[in-house]
Amino acid sequence: MPSPEFFQVTPVSDALRRLEAHWRPDPPAETIATADALARILASDIASPEQIPAFRKSTVDGYALRASDTFGASQSLPAFLTVCGELPMGEAPALDLGAGEALLIHTGGMLPASADAVIMIEHTQAADAHEIEVLRAVAPGENVIQAGEDIGAGKTLLPGRQRLRPQDIGGLLAVGVASVTVLRRPRIGILSCGDELLPPAAESPPPGKVRDINAYTLSALAQKLGAAPLRLGIASDDFADYQRRARDGFAACDILLLSAGSSVSARDYTRDVIAGLGQPGVLQHGLATKPGKPTILALCDNRPVIGLPGNPVSALLVARQLLPHLVARYGGQALAAPRRVSARLSQRVASVTGREDWLPVRLSEVDGQLRAQPIFGKSNLIFTLVAADGLLRVPLNTGGYDAGSLVDIEMF
Amino acid sequence: MPSPEFFQVTPVSDALRRLEAHWRPDPPAETIATADALARILASDIASPEQIPAFRKSTVDGYALRASDTFGASQSLPAFLTVCGELPMGEAPALDLGAGEALLIHTGGMLPASADAVIMIEHTQAADAHEIEVLRAVAPGENVIQAGEDIGAGKTLLPGRQRLRPQDIGGLLAVGVASVTVLRRPRIGILSCGDELLPPAAESPPPGKVRDINAYTLSALAQKLGAAPLRLGIASDDFADYQRRARDGFAACDILLLSAGSSVSARDYTRDVIAGLGQPGVLQHGLATKPGKPTILALCDNRPVIGLPGNPVSALLVARQLLPHLVARYGGQALAAPRRVSARLSQRVASVTGREDWLPVRLSEVDGQLRAQPIFGKSNLIFTLVAADGLLRVPLNTGGYDAGSLVDIEMF
Repeated sequence: MPSPEFFQVTPVSDALRRLEAHWRPDPPAETIATADALARILASDIASPEQIPAFRKSTVDGYALRASDTFGASQSLPAFLTVCGELPMGEAPALDLGAGEALLIHTGGMLPASADAVIMIEHTQAADAHEIEVLRAVAPGENVIQAGEDIGAGKTLLPGRQRLRPQDIGGLLAVGVASVTVLRRPRIGILSCGDELLPPAAESPPPGKVRDINAYTLSALAQKLGAAPLRLGIASDDFADYQRRARDGFAACDILLLSAGSSVSARDYTRDVIAGLGQPGVLQHGLATKPGKPTILALCDNRPVIGLPGNPVSALLVARQLLPHLVARYGGQALAAPRRVSARLSQRVASVTGREDWLPVRLSEVDGQLRAQPIFGKSNLIFTLVAADGLLRVPLNTGGYDAGSLVDIEMF
Repeated sequence: MPSPEFFQVTPVSDALRRLEAHWRPDPPAETIATADALARILASDIASPEQIPAFRKSTVDGYALRASDTFGASQSLPAFLTVCGELPMGEAPALDLGAGEALLIHTGGMLPASADAVIMIEHTQAADAHEIEVLRAVAPGENVIQAGEDIGAGKTLLPGRQRLRPQDIGGLLAVGVASVTVLRRPRIGILSCGDELLPPAAESPPPGKVRDINAYTLSALAQKLGAAPLRLGIASDDFADYQRRARDGFAACDILLLSAGSSVSARDYTRDVIAGLGQPGVLQHGLATKPGKPTILALCDNRPVIGLPGNPVSALLVARQLLPHLVARYGGQALAAPRRVSARLSQRVASVTGREDWLPVRLSEVDGQLRAQPIFGKSNLIFTLVAADGLLRVPLNTGGYDAGSLVDIEMF
């Protein structure tokens, strides 16, 4: 039977710091099509192989011309220019401009070599079929983008560790970078342990058995974080089986989550199984958080291993606190702030000294203001989370919150 | 040559409201594995086929017993109970309990029929090998989750139009719902038009040509929103070709984006091409936003069609304003608020009456506070967006912002 819990709890942030102090992530790279690289992380700086634009182009619809031909022009004293043609889109000018000549050009069109400015169509008027009046002067370079003005050849286009956004994909493709070398997504292995667990496909589990859902909630969380989940199945409460499956699975992943069943033996075994996976092993056993107190943080062979509680709510809520840090750190990213809303608390929430509490809440709108109603479940039942819109964090060593307090709710 | 722009601009929100007033999205459903359904939207309510838990279970490690056997028990006057065995995890109790008997049970274990409570191990002590002293009374139901307490059979487990989160997938699998019927993702067709455009795979475009990147930036945006992008290629500036490709592509998608090239003919043609796609056709031509003024909003055969500017920055920034609304509306979802941060503006930003402006900004930390530096590009060059961290919106008809103002930045 269980001995009194021997572990010393510590705040989540301290435990993470301890793990991250030892961890030197070294993600391998892979080369993929740029078009498929949304949200992937560049392995290294990318220099532009070309300049953009590749040629001098007009930013307006108008006439390409020599600016000097317009100097002094005004409404009352227009300059007269000969229109030598219209430049079709997508073509280079067939002829160059002579003095006193203008070429009809469209936005994005390529300037002839001797032209150095474009006058907007609105600032001209037709004199006859082949002549225009230019009603104001333009300066050299006016309404023109110079070649290389957007980016020069050889310039750093994107820095290593950039997480690619739609415009980054556009920028890469604009200069012909059709494939990119990115960090492999972290492979997050998930192994559940417990004789009472059956795969969720099981129809009508026999008395005493339950379906293992942690492998699936944790997979979904990993997927949401842009990682690659790897479900490793269910280990029995037999130590040798648990250890073998953990070792085999660990070989194929970058971060391992063990979700120990509720049985005492599974809980005890998790620590021993982790100890067998590599050095330095267990760094922290016990977090000052509820749910999630008996969580284990370990680093084995430079890969994080987390021992999670078996209760599905506890496992998911602890993983939510730890996994975003680990995935961000793996890819060299800053941690994205969770989405939060401000709401009035519907009732008093007490605080317990020495731990932080995470309470599921349901949000509703009352008189145009968000109201957060805590959902108190007897024992971390999964449907309390299904019914919830977000979580209220009651920080360590605070006095809790009075009814009516304005609190931040972390949204799912 | 272009006639003066004949369209009347209108605020983006008004234009969207006009489109949404006519649009009755009717997304088809498809059935997929629950394990793969993260972020998908349920087509209809799902009732639980089973109750959870399926059996009465203990929430603690302790002894299952009849509560009445403990009434009056205390430290000084313990109740003595005979231990009739230990229940292995995952098994149903082989024998029932008699009066004065207790069964060693683990968290999650199934209670014998006659037991109605569990006493925590800490509130007992061993008297001899087969007898325990119970040091306090427990009430009927104490430390027990009743069958069906998490969810009852036939109860609504999740409502239609719920966007599935990790815990929802867990809840569904817990009751054996291994597949779910969800809305098909909206298929967002993207057709670019312009004789100057080449596919991005093109090596060294000849003078006058540029690579078409809008199809890829818009695909990435659609993907980010959970939609299914469908790249329809590049149409030439020939009206018949543009029309044919738009019609063929429209047949296969739920929302169509036309990104017209910069040529005048392509711009003029877009309106005509849209007119040929179905009723009621163009609802709005011209938005009071920069970039993006010449945007067209249309509804053809109950499917939105958006005519975007050809400039890559304009196309992406307008699509960012419109597409999240359309995708949310398609799936019956509330619009998720964009991620925003608060920052001090590094310099004054002027406002132009009659339109809202979207300015790319770069963020940096100065003295522990975020500073937003606007990036003024000559003509919406894509690398101004690549260099930016977010966007500053200068609302319609405001006086702009002074240097040092605290502003909200919408993050990419």
